Amino acid sequence: MIKITGAVKKTIEAEELSNYIGKTITIHGSIYKIRMMSGFAFVIIRTKRSLEQCIYSNEYTEYDIANLKEHMCVNLVGEVVSDERSKKGYEIRIKTVDILSHAEEETPVVINNKEVAASLETILDYRPITLRNEKERAIFKIQEGICIAVREFLHKNLFTEIHSPKIVYAGAEGGSNIFKLDYFGTEAYLAQSPQVYKQMMVGVYERVFEIGAVYRAEKHDTSRHLNEYTGIDFEMGYIESFTEIMEMETKMLQAIMEYLNKNYQSEITLLKVNLPVVDEIPAIRFTEAKELVSKTYNREIKDMGDFEPEEERLLCNIIKKKTGSDFVFVTHYPSEKRPFYAMEEPGNPEFTESFDLLFRGIEVTTGGQRVHNYKEQVAKMLKRNMNPEQFESYLMIHKYGMPPHGGLGIGLERFTMCLLERSNVRETTLFPRDMHRLVP
Amino acid sequence: MIKITGAVKKTIEAEELSNYIGKTITIHGSIYKIRMMSGFAFVIIRTKRSLEQCIYSNEYTEYDIANLKEHMCVNLVGEVVSDERSKKGYEIRIKTVDILSHAEEETPVVINNKEVAASLETILDYRPITLRNEKERAIFKIQEGICIAVREFLHKNLFTEIHSPKIVYAGAEGGSNIFKLDYFGTEAYLAQSPQVYKQMMVGVYERVFEIGAVYRAEKHDTSRHLNEYTGIDFEMGYIESFTEIMEMETKMLQAIMEYLNKNYQSEITLLKVNLPVVDEIPAIRFTEAKELVSKTYNREIKDMGDFEPEEERLLCNIIKKKTGSDFVFVTHYPSEKRPFYAMEEPGNPEFTESFDLLFRGIEVTTGGQRVHNYKEQVAKMLKRNMNPEQFESYLMIHKYGMPPHGGLGIGLERFTMCLLERSNVRETTLFPRDMHRLVP
Repeated sequence: MIKITGAVKKTIEAEELSNYIGKTITIHGSIYKIRMMSGFAFVIIRTKRSLEQCIYSNEYTEYDIANLKEHMCVNLVGEVVSDERSKKGYEIRIKTVDILSHAEEETPVVINNKEVAASLETILDYRPITLRNEKERAIFKIQEGICIAVREFLHKNLFTEIHSPKIVYAGAEGGSNIFKLDYFGTEAYLAQSPQVYKQMMVGVYERVFEIGAVYRAEKHDTSRHLNEYTGIDFEMGYIESFTEIMEMETKMLQAIMEYLNKNYQSEITLLKVNLPVVDEIPAIRFTEAKELVSKTYNREIKDMGDFEPEEERLLCNIIKKKTGSDFVFVTHYPSEKRPFYAMEEPGNPEFTESFDLLFRGIEVTTGGQRVHNYKEQVAKMLKRNMNPEQFESYLMIHKYGMPPHGGLGIGLERFTMCLLERSNVRETTLFPRDMHRLVP
Repeated sequence: MIKITGAVKKTIEAEELSNYIGKTITIHGSIYKIRMMSGFAFVIIRTKRSLEQCIYSNEYTEYDIANLKEHMCVNLVGEVVSDERSKKGYEIRIKTVDILSHAEEETPVVINNKEVAASLETILDYRPITLRNEKERAIFKIQEGICIAVREFLHKNLFTEIHSPKIVYAGAEGGSNIFKLDYFGTEAYLAQSPQVYKQMMVGVYERVFEIGAVYRAEKHDTSRHLNEYTGIDFEMGYIESFTEIMEMETKMLQAIMEYLNKNYQSEITLLKVNLPVVDEIPAIRFTEAKELVSKTYNREIKDMGDFEPEEERLLCNIIKKKTGSDFVFVTHYPSEKRPFYAMEEPGNPEFTESFDLLFRGIEVTTGGQRVHNYKEQVAKMLKRNMNPEQFESYLMIHKYGMPPHGGLGIGLERFTMCLLERSNVRETTLFPRDMHRLVP
């Protein structure tokens, strides 16, 4: 019997190399690129998060560079030498290299240039290796940063994180846009949102959140829809008004930008990310927003029930010009377009205590206050020809006492798309799922 | 247009009440219990995380207690008065109560006693309200703590968190235990693990992890299997041996226990959690473990290829007696029972560089080193009558250079079950999914 004590091997990270000037160290990584110069070579090592430029010269070593090939995984022994010409203040002079593994063939797409010069389709087809490109992978470090910031913020604000099931017995949002599966002979569905579960959990912990998969079987084939995405959902009890949810989201956005600014500078610089200033976010009623766009751009309003994507884009333009804000809340959406659990505006039941958040032209959040009174919720269901008996376990929360509450859902990949000013959500989705893509 | 500035309303939390002695404050929550005494009453308010005992007496207020009923959600105005008889050092004297909502009827199960005195089936049937019981909800606060500790630990150890798709084109582990769904006319599956994706991402970030849903269509109807559960998966590159994965897990377990001990004392006390000491964890080869159990308990070995659950339990007994450890690593499982990507023991191909972690009698982790060489992986697939062409996108990582790597998967709910010494994993699953349960 041997004993495992938690003695994790310490290796030198790229980020601490500047502490080792004058020393011979070992770093590990993948050979990203070899650039042969006259009399020497640059050997660029891709580590967890950075590219490290090493110098090969037969002045420094007897090791034969002919052994090295791009995409090999290696342990590299080198001397860290102070060098003012280098951006990092040092260079690594290669002494010897221990080859751990190698590529069988040339990559089908060149992945070690500044950008992957290929179509989005090709980039996605070869995702497992195109993600090795420094810019491609930086996108998902930023996405990681968003999630860390969200969790840190929500924990600090006393939200409890939950894991709700994705195999469900009925679709919360209803409709046909739902994936069906055979569950031991019963028909089951993939959750379109954690809506019912997060409401249930508000009755337990008052404030809850979840970051998890969301499924929409929509036959949309657009640049901003996915059939599986990561939802950031939070829900909070004891609110006096749905503006409290918008205040919480605004504060969360401020926390996200601050966190990224502090901890993801290398990726921000590499991707030239234009972090938005989240000082104050204007909020405008849906009807006024429709009219504002119509008037400003002399456009006919075709559907008073919802926005066209073009209207969202134009509204953001107006707001940006007027206030400088990259964000705008649109409030009080029409009741007929909002789900059965949406709370109606007091005295104005055609509208709801709800909002969307638009970010650089695109909707990234939907939220609002929910009905918490049992009789009111049952009545609203009946009015919509829904059968309350089918929602028995959901209605339990209303029946046995629920505080006034509300919450929101944010699409992580779409939010990342807007943050990075990309034109297709697939660019900011690790392994996208759409009508035509199930691989890899 | 109004402006949203992130001005989140500050309310007084139960945890800070002791700072308000002598002051009149407002707290909000659900009335958990009303206990009428002679001449006064205890009104217990359930807040986000605690129960607060308030005193009603007509000496202190003209408010009529007849207005109050259990399960109402309220804003309660009271005076915080120092009181040495109280455990918390103060009591709250009710001045007035603002009722926000009420229960329509008596709850079908009594939820406001120390325990919910009902069968597990009933507790689960009424999950949305039985979770309001202080002990039931404490379980999932502990579970939250485990996740926070895991993330904090893995981030500190430079793992990048990823979100991989759960709708997949083929089962990584193969077999028939897989949920099928119709994906726009194509057959798709629900992921049995993030295995292929976390391996792909090791080629990108070196160290990655995911906490996400895992699906197993197993027709098991046992106390420790679920059909949907939360997997904690990590995967790390540039390892020299699979013992490094066990060292990392051991250090992570140490971090979890430390975190819970520091931040979840109220739940630990309430649930009488016996936190294990994770000092050093013994590791024993599978074959030796089988023989040890057989010899110690004079049991016949029926299957040299795997453990029976009873053998796992007995092995843990032996280890506990011998070393005091609640955990034991079992290493070098037979190749025939491990998946196609498991690395074989050098010179001993019937066994693998793999391990399970047993915790108080039950397997909570499976891990090991993976094949990283392309030719070796293809050969191993062919030997198993698998068609490498069906794994083209997976094999890309091997073909274009992968470091030696390995990782593990932990079932969050099962781990929680063992930590809390419960006998059924459904007790520690928020909304369990099994062959017979899809609701709520």
